[in-house]
Amino acid sequence: MIAFEKLKFAQEKNNSKLCVGLDSTIEKLPKHIEKNVNGLFEFNKKIIDATIDLVCSYKINFAFYEQYGSDGIDLIKKTINYINHNHQDKIILNIADAKRGDIGNTSAAYSKAILIDMGFDSITVNPLMGSDCVLPFLEDKEKFVFLLALTSNKGSQDFQMLNLESGIPLYKKIIEISSKWADENQLGYVIGATHPEMLKGIREIIPNRLLLFPGIGTQGGNATELLKYNSHNPYLINVSRDIIYTSNEINFEEKVNLKAENYKNLFNSIDENL
Amino acid sequence: MIAFEKLKFAQEKNNSKLCVGLDSTIEKLPKHIEKNVNGLFEFNKKIIDATIDLVCSYKINFAFYEQYGSDGIDLIKKTINYINHNHQDKIILNIADAKRGDIGNTSAAYSKAILIDMGFDSITVNPLMGSDCVLPFLEDKEKFVFLLALTSNKGSQDFQMLNLESGIPLYKKIIEISSKWADENQLGYVIGATHPEMLKGIREIIPNRLLLFPGIGTQGGNATELLKYNSHNPYLINVSRDIIYTSNEINFEEKVNLKAENYKNLFNSIDENL
Repeated sequence: MIAFEKLKFAQEKNNSKLCVGLDSTIEKLPKHIEKNVNGLFEFNKKIIDATIDLVCSYKINFAFYEQYGSDGIDLIKKTINYINHNHQDKIILNIADAKRGDIGNTSAAYSKAILIDMGFDSITVNPLMGSDCVLPFLEDKEKFVFLLALTSNKGSQDFQMLNLESGIPLYKKIIEISSKWADENQLGYVIGATHPEMLKGIREIIPNRLLLFPGIGTQGGNATELLKYNSHNPYLINVSRDIIYTSNEINFEEKVNLKAENYKNLFNSIDENL
Repeated sequence: MIAFEKLKFAQEKNNSKLCVGLDSTIEKLPKHIEKNVNGLFEFNKKIIDATIDLVCSYKINFAFYEQYGSDGIDLIKKTINYINHNHQDKIILNIADAKRGDIGNTSAAYSKAILIDMGFDSITVNPLMGSDCVLPFLEDKEKFVFLLALTSNKGSQDFQMLNLESGIPLYKKIIEISSKWADENQLGYVIGATHPEMLKGIREIIPNRLLLFPGIGTQGGNATELLKYNSHNPYLINVSRDIIYTSNEINFEEKVNLKAENYKNLFNSIDENL
């Protein structure tokens, strides 16, 4: 199943637009879990088991794993394997939040490493270096690319929001140019949930593109505002820390399950009331 | 020794502005070398032994290593260890060409992984996400950041060269804004050697900043043009494929040594004749 179809299937089956970000680090593990990479895998498995019927996607942020060197890379693989094989009756999109992007032959190597060898369905890519850096990630027509356009952090003001000569801001130009590189079955965008007011203008350019919204939860984005401007167009919302670290206790999985369910229901109820 | 001083020391001692890029991949190994990750380490060691007195820096492009999963990550560490310990009488700057950049807590994790745990002196960082994504890499005052400003590939036209409302292109604005984030002992830029004519304007904004020029050799940049516009300001030039894959034969180290010496002498002679 191609990545885009996988997401649609999962969103319908679980009635959910929630993506859980597995930003797992040793320091934040619940107190009864071993403080090492094995403990991280136990933690990831428990989070996955507790949420697999409530989400449409899992996102793995590579930075948190790379800090554990080669063990961290193995942990990414084991986690993806766990999602794909221990729950093979469940169809869930997985996203490599790696924000890669380099000259052609280098992006091709990243693409092989992440999309082929690690078995990810999709990847976040940084567009600053232009088309020849993004196209290698689009070669396999089954895979999906989320291009960074307007990120959720404060620093998004520094360059992404600068106005170009033509009067439009850089993040819109990124969307305008790059949306010619692949159709909506293969290419969508990362738009920070912290900028709901800008989403309106973005949806005027790309009504049908799939958008990944990070920034809800710990980062403070407002889902009601955001989904109002999104007005029923294709999306998924990532929540990481606010779900996975919701409890430090022995029964944290139950709390994680409840928190994920709350988020899932919140997004659905906002959408229903639009 | 702080990274910036390390580079100055190496440039003086070896009388060289050459950085060798260890873009090593199994497919391109000389024919007598084992076609696996062990073979890659043998290859890297031979390249390093053949060039250590001719360079000021080694650059490791992470993509080529990450395609070998956790073995590739171990190979990066072993290679950096080999440079730092088997040649500890030689002082050489090493650069993690990782082009990272993510929101604050994530960039902090990348910074720990690459600059602290792996022991790199410096790293290339993508500035698109703004200051809070770059600052974590600048926290350790001994380390050096090369920020992407104008890359060597064709895709640099897509966004980096777009003119802003103020009339200046994005790559200049990136330099203008980010040069306030750290002084020249900690922050420099990646400027593609394929755009010599634009270097003049860049040097008007940041005459004293250290610039890393990729794009000479296989990518076709012209060193004479480039160094004319650089006019004796601080720089290093990276050459990867044209040096490390110069020969497929049993005595490839000799060819690599000659090729590196030619490049070193070429850059010096251009500078002397300015």
